[in-house]
Amino acid sequence: MHFKSSLYTSLLLLLTAILPWNRANAQEKYEPAWSNLSGCDYPQVSSQMNVRVRFHAPNASKVEVAGGDGFTQKPIALAKDKEGYWFGTVPNVTPGFHYYWFNVDGVQVNDPASVAYMGYGRPTSGLYAPTPGEEFLECKQVPHGDVREHTYFSEVTGKWRRAYVYTPAGYDRGTKNRYPILYLLHGAGEDERGWTLQGRMNFILDNLIAEGKAVPMVVVMDNGYATAKGDTADTSLSRDGMKKRAEVLMDVYKKDIIPTFETSYRIKQGRENRAMAGLSMGGFETLLIGLNNTDMFAYYGAFSAAIIGGLMDNPKTAFNGVFADAEAFNKNVKLLWFGVGSNETRFVEMVADTRDKLNGLGINAQYYQSENTYHEWHTWSRCLHQFAPLLFK
Amino acid sequence: MHFKSSLYTSLLLLLTAILPWNRANAQEKYEPAWSNLSGCDYPQVSSQMNVRVRFHAPNASKVEVAGGDGFTQKPIALAKDKEGYWFGTVPNVTPGFHYYWFNVDGVQVNDPASVAYMGYGRPTSGLYAPTPGEEFLECKQVPHGDVREHTYFSEVTGKWRRAYVYTPAGYDRGTKNRYPILYLLHGAGEDERGWTLQGRMNFILDNLIAEGKAVPMVVVMDNGYATAKGDTADTSLSRDGMKKRAEVLMDVYKKDIIPTFETSYRIKQGRENRAMAGLSMGGFETLLIGLNNTDMFAYYGAFSAAIIGGLMDNPKTAFNGVFADAEAFNKNVKLLWFGVGSNETRFVEMVADTRDKLNGLGINAQYYQSENTYHEWHTWSRCLHQFAPLLFK
Repeated sequence: MHFKSSLYTSLLLLLTAILPWNRANAQEKYEPAWSNLSGCDYPQVSSQMNVRVRFHAPNASKVEVAGGDGFTQKPIALAKDKEGYWFGTVPNVTPGFHYYWFNVDGVQVNDPASVAYMGYGRPTSGLYAPTPGEEFLECKQVPHGDVREHTYFSEVTGKWRRAYVYTPAGYDRGTKNRYPILYLLHGAGEDERGWTLQGRMNFILDNLIAEGKAVPMVVVMDNGYATAKGDTADTSLSRDGMKKRAEVLMDVYKKDIIPTFETSYRIKQGRENRAMAGLSMGGFETLLIGLNNTDMFAYYGAFSAAIIGGLMDNPKTAFNGVFADAEAFNKNVKLLWFGVGSNETRFVEMVADTRDKLNGLGINAQYYQSENTYHEWHTWSRCLHQFAPLLFK
Repeated sequence: MHFKSSLYTSLLLLLTAILPWNRANAQEKYEPAWSNLSGCDYPQVSSQMNVRVRFHAPNASKVEVAGGDGFTQKPIALAKDKEGYWFGTVPNVTPGFHYYWFNVDGVQVNDPASVAYMGYGRPTSGLYAPTPGEEFLECKQVPHGDVREHTYFSEVTGKWRRAYVYTPAGYDRGTKNRYPILYLLHGAGEDERGWTLQGRMNFILDNLIAEGKAVPMVVVMDNGYATAKGDTADTSLSRDGMKKRAEVLMDVYKKDIIPTFETSYRIKQGRENRAMAGLSMGGFETLLIGLNNTDMFAYYGAFSAAIIGGLMDNPKTAFNGVFADAEAFNKNVKLLWFGVGSNETRFVEMVADTRDKLNGLGINAQYYQSENTYHEWHTWSRCLHQFAPLLFK
């Protein structure tokens, strides 16, 4: 009886193991991710948004795959084959860009099959899952803008800096036409390339402009980290660290970035032609730099903004009292826009709390929720796609 | 006696071990490499061009550091401290850019303290050693050109491609001035970003143009890999693989790149305003594409060129007989320039053999040797610095 029972159990386990595999196999077609380096077969993505990964480590005793929230909340153990390749499947990822990596006997290792994107403060592998029904970030047969690497000297930091500048299609053909400008900020642990590589901002704007939904604009993407000349670099995510950095960065914007880029490129003058937006830490910086200087900017976008450091504890006195007179604010500020991913609970709370406080004061604040996404790039690509059409109109 | 002898030996070994360490310690000052990610203390470089590396892998049983030829010819074993950090010193590296990585129990792992550059067909860590006495590749207080990411559709490959385009300082201010154009090709396992990130071509040209040594020019850096529409990608370094790719790439240049870039940017017309140069595999491609089309290009640069596949077995019939009439060639081709690093023996032989064959035919061919460098980026940065002033004059 005992023997029989354990035989039944074994058979049952075997069937449980085989059946879903067969069913999955029959329905699921895996394809190498389009974001893989040329000729690399893994990672692969299925139509059901499952991801198969592979890593070669014949001598390792434990290999896991891990990544951002929309990829997997917890590391997933891989299994080794005879040739020393470790395989595993990540179920049910969200659409769009995902950071991922392998933990090889406790060491975080990138996938040699992937471009290394700047994320989490270090180069990190990335995978683009399909975005069915959302062609807005695809590279299409429309006129394309250039993304330029622009080198300039910052007096505030005492160092050369590199920013990326999107100039819309047709910018070079014109000689006199001037453009409004959007300053677009990345998140913590990322850099000035994030918005193009991970966020595909150039394709999003190319498409919106080609469809006539957004006005042609220049977009400057600079590094969100700045250290005053003589100071030591601080990349901490503490309230004070972020606040101090944002204040130095405010100085860089006022004294270096805005004067440099608005003369190097053909930019329309005045605050009504100037917008600022950013994600996470960049959202915090947007609020802190932008709302303290409403004489300089008329449009604001805060994507999954880190509204920390008591920024909104006292809305009436926040940002030098900019919200104290709602009528004046609503007349002066053309757009104050908040976006967040429905699954990033902590940020939903921060943003909703801010929105409620602002509404309570009679401040016009727009709110957008990206459904079923986390604190991740697809939330921010969607935010940009919603936000950009509202600018400079 | 036996005992005494072994005591002497031990003392001698101890002194041998301590003395150089003391001497080195007294003289050598280590600084974090300027190329490290912000806030990263390692790797460090000394004034004597020794490099100290560090890697955290508490559970690993063997960690080595390895890299390109100018960094270390053989992997160097590291030693672990109590906190699980592995340390080691790479002696006597050459100046300029070096790829490097760690072998952690047999797995090739990048340094989280470094940008990951495309090299060896995968993202790879890189370190800039100082280049004392060679300021030509530094970012200086001179007007800087932009480097643009340009997206275009290739009919030949049936795919979107991304190229980098250097436009010199002042390009945007002018509206009618047109520029000559240099097509600059990367090496095997690298990509279209190599010439700016690893090779610092934009700073080299900014400096040469500011000093009046080179004429302002536009430089297009495209990907050196191309697969005809419908074909399977082949990244092999076999003679046939490289030849087939170069032939597809020739088609891409003729049908896609030249028509696209010479209308998207303000480029002077005609072959005397068009140059092509490349390194290693890109040198092979330059010779194959360029010398088969002398009606299209007037200037050629082959930097550590892979002159393989029997390209020069029969110089009189090579490249459709372009060298058969030396007088006509010398009149038609303004510059045929070869450069190579003195330490990359195999390439020195290939290039010297080619030069001798060409001289034998009465062909004007210039030859430059970069002293004490290998098959590495500093050879090619120096080559560009020598080559660019000879163009379009």
